Amino acid sequence: MEYSNLITKLLEGNTRAAARLITIVENDIDAAETIIKSIYKSTGNAYILGITGAPGSGKSTFISTLTNTFIEQGRKVGIICVDPTSPITGGALLGDRIRMKQYFTLDRVFIRSMANRGQLGGLARATEDVIKILDAYGCEIIIVETVGVGQSEVDIFKSAETVIVLLVPGLGDDIQAIKAGIMEITDIFVVNKMDFPGADRKVAEISQMLELNSSFKYQSNQLREEYFKLVAWPPEIVKVNSKTGENFKELIEIIKKHIQFLEDTGVISNYLKNRIKSETLQILKHKLQKKVEDLINSNQEKIEQYINKVIEKSLDPYSMADIIIKMLGIEK
Amino acid sequence: MEYSNLITKLLEGNTRAAARLITIVENDIDAAETIIKSIYKSTGNAYILGITGAPGSGKSTFISTLTNTFIEQGRKVGIICVDPTSPITGGALLGDRIRMKQYFTLDRVFIRSMANRGQLGGLARATEDVIKILDAYGCEIIIVETVGVGQSEVDIFKSAETVIVLLVPGLGDDIQAIKAGIMEITDIFVVNKMDFPGADRKVAEISQMLELNSSFKYQSNQLREEYFKLVAWPPEIVKVNSKTGENFKELIEIIKKHIQFLEDTGVISNYLKNRIKSETLQILKHKLQKKVEDLINSNQEKIEQYINKVIEKSLDPYSMADIIIKMLGIEK
Repeated sequence: MEYSNLITKLLEGNTRAAARLITIVENDIDAAETIIKSIYKSTGNAYILGITGAPGSGKSTFISTLTNTFIEQGRKVGIICVDPTSPITGGALLGDRIRMKQYFTLDRVFIRSMANRGQLGGLARATEDVIKILDAYGCEIIIVETVGVGQSEVDIFKSAETVIVLLVPGLGDDIQAIKAGIMEITDIFVVNKMDFPGADRKVAEISQMLELNSSFKYQSNQLREEYFKLVAWPPEIVKVNSKTGENFKELIEIIKKHIQFLEDTGVISNYLKNRIKSETLQILKHKLQKKVEDLINSNQEKIEQYINKVIEKSLDPYSMADIIIKMLGIEK
Repeated sequence: MEYSNLITKLLEGNTRAAARLITIVENDIDAAETIIKSIYKSTGNAYILGITGAPGSGKSTFISTLTNTFIEQGRKVGIICVDPTSPITGGALLGDRIRMKQYFTLDRVFIRSMANRGQLGGLARATEDVIKILDAYGCEIIIVETVGVGQSEVDIFKSAETVIVLLVPGLGDDIQAIKAGIMEITDIFVVNKMDFPGADRKVAEISQMLELNSSFKYQSNQLREEYFKLVAWPPEIVKVNSKTGENFKELIEIIKKHIQFLEDTGVISNYLKNRIKSETLQILKHKLQKKVEDLINSNQEKIEQYINKVIEKSLDPYSMADIIIKMLGIEK
């Protein structure tokens, strides 16, 4: 098989093999399919941590310090930085990347940046695949970092066992900026820069918001079916100082407590089921989209005729969609 | 037909009929299909203006003043406020809505707010349908406003003939916050609050960014096929004061110049073709998704079995997706 050499090396923990395979799955869904199918049995050992926060919340420093703390505890860490807001040029988080560059040289950290290069919905799928590669490569903890902007995070964090949102004292708008979608899937709120004035006020603001918001993760509309019977995890709030490392041990204790909660309540097995479901749906979406694209590309003249009919208003877009569905071979 | 009474009223310019039909198409894609099919011939007369900007850029005041200017010129205006970042609770832009409430009483303005209530990709589809209803209702100008966060806007602005991005002096991060995807589809940059210090500097910053960025709307990767032969529209930059109305006449002249450009170069007919194509694809995506959901819901036991196989690792998500595609009736 084309990639078997690389895959063998990956499973031995070879860093270059991991990097090459990631590039391949990002750019080629057919290759991704082949690769994921053959490493799938070696996955499922990593713990996935989703981290987001408003710009200016000090995400890079926070992740650096958190990663250091994990490394000191003997863990191997993977970091995936996802930027769903950059569909065309990517690279918007380059500054962050450079600041985290120190890790490239370390043996126990693998860092990778991903942007939404016109994948149109495929970023969540690609992220899942990259997670699997890092998992098979031997990372015990995989940090998935994104900018805090909404629906994209909700999709990308589907895999995360624990979701952390970073806030800072002072920045009055950051709670609002992070928006409803993310709030509902957050397990731990971290107030970074605890040495700044207003840290306690920020903690109070979060508490207040949590009280106001009666619907959370395990009761939200989105996940209601799966979790309505479960006892809710009341999101924890913790202050840290990423520059000095203050309170990071406490933070890791909270993360452990959350893992314990997930295991004790059985939520973790629901998680796994939901993750597989949502991952399969992502792949399915991508495959169907590709089928539609292939169909359109190989029937350009016909499609052009239909478009002209829609312009003349003798056809409408809904009826045109039905025609294409029939062309796909699915009965209306 | 179920909605024929409402549709007749809509075409007569009845506001309540418009509001009710909008609620229906937002919540029910099957009803949307029936409604859009029967009003489709009465659409195509509105000019669509996409407006976005960072939080704090004064979007609401800007849109108020712009709308007033259009009304003074005798136009009927529709405003659709879309918030793609609020998947669950919506309502994050409620503040903005309230500030714009004055218009609800006016005869010549129809304002509507939409949030991404778990429609998962359906917001762009719903927005297209709402645009069509306002078009058939008689709005000559339809303003589609969103928060500036990336891919979602790019999808939602597919219909917009002219895209305006709002910036303000001082806010150093706003250019970066708006991100690459939106920059590439912007026709007019508006520096709001021109009376604030730094307005000229902001204009200079935008110019500089435009010079640095060599790929724009008509040459971007996304649209290259359609537009590579066309002369580019160099994005215009204009300063305004939304509180006093200063420079709004100039802004409207630039909008007119852009309309003229689109017509003279024939870009507008390409726009129409692309819009129909992308709209059909949105509908198609939604229909296929619904088919997949129906399939999954009516085969829950089977799907559960497959999920368990994936958990046991005797199956992987890619193979599971293939099985579902076969169940849909499409050959692998």
